[in-house]
Amino acid sequence: MSGGPIASVTAIGWVRCARDPEEEDDWGDVPSTIELAPEFGPEALLGLEDFSHLQVLFLLHAVAAERVETGLRRPRNNPAWPEVGIFAQRVKRRPNRLASTICTLERVDGKTLHVRGLDAIDGTPVLDLKPVMAEFLPRGPVRQPTWSTELMREYWER
Amino acid sequence: MSGGPIASVTAIGWVRCARDPEEEDDWGDVPSTIELAPEFGPEALLGLEDFSHLQVLFLLHAVAAERVETGLRRPRNNPAWPEVGIFAQRVKRRPNRLASTICTLERVDGKTLHVRGLDAIDGTPVLDLKPVMAEFLPRGPVRQPTWSTELMREYWER
Repeated sequence: MSGGPIASVTAIGWVRCARDPEEEDDWGDVPSTIELAPEFGPEALLGLEDFSHLQVLFLLHAVAAERVETGLRRPRNNPAWPEVGIFAQRVKRRPNRLASTICTLERVDGKTLHVRGLDAIDGTPVLDLKPVMAEFLPRGPVRQPTWSTELMREYWER
Repeated sequence: MSGGPIASVTAIGWVRCARDPEEEDDWGDVPSTIELAPEFGPEALLGLEDFSHLQVLFLLHAVAAERVETGLRRPRNNPAWPEVGIFAQRVKRRPNRLASTICTLERVDGKTLHVRGLDAIDGTPVLDLKPVMAEFLPRGPVRQPTWSTELMREYWER
């Protein structure tokens, strides 16, 4: 088997967000909305408000195909951090350009979700929404390297 | 804007797993491997072993397009649980057929990852691998409805 397309994806909604698309950090308090695509009715969201957190899968649509990396890269080009493989980091320029973020779900209003702390720029196509269940969080303690902790230090709150 | 294809995805690897594909629960101790696609070298995984947990995005390839649901559904058809919208549950028959699971990363051996607790059947195409960073887990306490806690009771361990 090898790497041709195996499926196509559609936007099930779009992110609306007033945030500067060049900003890399300080996402925690950013308010956004997600508007469902025309083919879905509000019933697709029924029961979601019973969850405090939402996992959003989205397409990193602003990354040009030729900028995708497949091998080693130094996170944020910071010389203090090691070169790591593309699948050992969460950088945007990755194969398939898929992102996954857990944000706070504040309110559902018809086909519009109001969320906070979604690190997606305005116009981002949303591919899936999943409720966060505690049972889908890591089982057992999380261990991670120092560079990732340093990188994330101001990601949510500066 | 509306719902035509916006991108195609490729398999960056495949799951190998000896597990009965009909089994729905008791995934926690299941060992699997993920084998990277030919176009990637082992350097794409460099540094991943410094993380205890791996997030795997995969295609629910065994779900036929005509079985995808877009509206309401009762989880596992259990009459004791409420009907909820497709985006308020993590059921397989969902638009874009994307799944995301956090599993334990046991070992990386060249282009093969050895994981435990990945709820993907043998042959599943993998779309992305991301290291789990504590900072990408929910910020603040997680609240969820009773039905989801009941549904998940034997999902990892019977």
